[in-house]
Amino acid sequence: MRILGIDPGTAIMGWGVIDEQGRTPALIECGALTTAAGMPQQDRLLLLYDGLQAILQKHVPQAAAIEELFFGKNVNTAIHVGQARGVALLALAQAGVPIYEYKPVVVKQAVAGYGGADKKQMQDMVRMTLKLPTIIKPDDAADAVAIAICHAYTAPMLQRIAASSR
Amino acid sequence: MRILGIDPGTAIMGWGVIDEQGRTPALIECGALTTAAGMPQQDRLLLLYDGLQAILQKHVPQAAAIEELFFGKNVNTAIHVGQARGVALLALAQAGVPIYEYKPVVVKQAVAGYGGADKKQMQDMVRMTLKLPTIIKPDDAADAVAIAICHAYTAPMLQRIAASSR
Repeated sequence: MRILGIDPGTAIMGWGVIDEQGRTPALIECGALTTAAGMPQQDRLLLLYDGLQAILQKHVPQAAAIEELFFGKNVNTAIHVGQARGVALLALAQAGVPIYEYKPVVVKQAVAGYGGADKKQMQDMVRMTLKLPTIIKPDDAADAVAIAICHAYTAPMLQRIAASSR
Repeated sequence: MRILGIDPGTAIMGWGVIDEQGRTPALIECGALTTAAGMPQQDRLLLLYDGLQAILQKHVPQAAAIEELFFGKNVNTAIHVGQARGVALLALAQAGVPIYEYKPVVVKQAVAGYGGADKKQMQDMVRMTLKLPTIIKPDDAADAVAIAICHAYTAPMLQRIAASSR
């Protein structure tokens, strides 16, 4: 299964594509879409949307994973993350890619085995899981890959639960 | 000048198109795009985006007016409004429509002459300004029309300021 992980933001939107076969995820490609601070927000959103569309066309993921609505950040940040997130969800919906959402604590639990893992621990675990020589940079790309790995681990469980409830 | 006002939200997105000639705005059409509560958020965003695109194609506005980022609401609301707002800004950017943002207090000042005007006063002033027999329903459509009227009043001033600073 090919999974696209997304870490949305207006200034920088991290993304990562992994392939998962029998609980062994492999990195296909990752990166970050960045937009200049001085640019009008609608132009930034347009760049992010076009960038995501290009990624979707290139990698044709079967599932997308994104962080669930977060709390505790300030309202101004939430509006801006929301705008970027809205554009990402739209691009995914238009491409017909199913979207799965995970809370940050669930991503940490799945990837590092511990819901309180810090940024460095997460980056090290992502590196080891994917057998990479160095940690992924920038941070936003690493975060996006972590969310994709979380879905790779969780999807088989979701399928078993769905099967057993039939 | 044809102006599109937008009041973004995921459940309901108000919109209103007015024509403005020499400080006399006239209502062309207004309404609200609504999405069902049980629908996945990406499908709701897709409906809003498609709805807005249809409005843009039908009315071809020369400017769009939208409420500026607001503060004081809760983070969960802000994320959802942000998502709808992001999709609206994207549709406007793709259509090449210039976007103007106004704070709620500025909209109230422009439309009702008083920054502390309440919802009912605003709806009455919108009705009188546009010489309508009754107030606009639903509220979200009335709010969107108010923002468009605010831009109709403000745009000539913006042009004079731009001209005098040359």
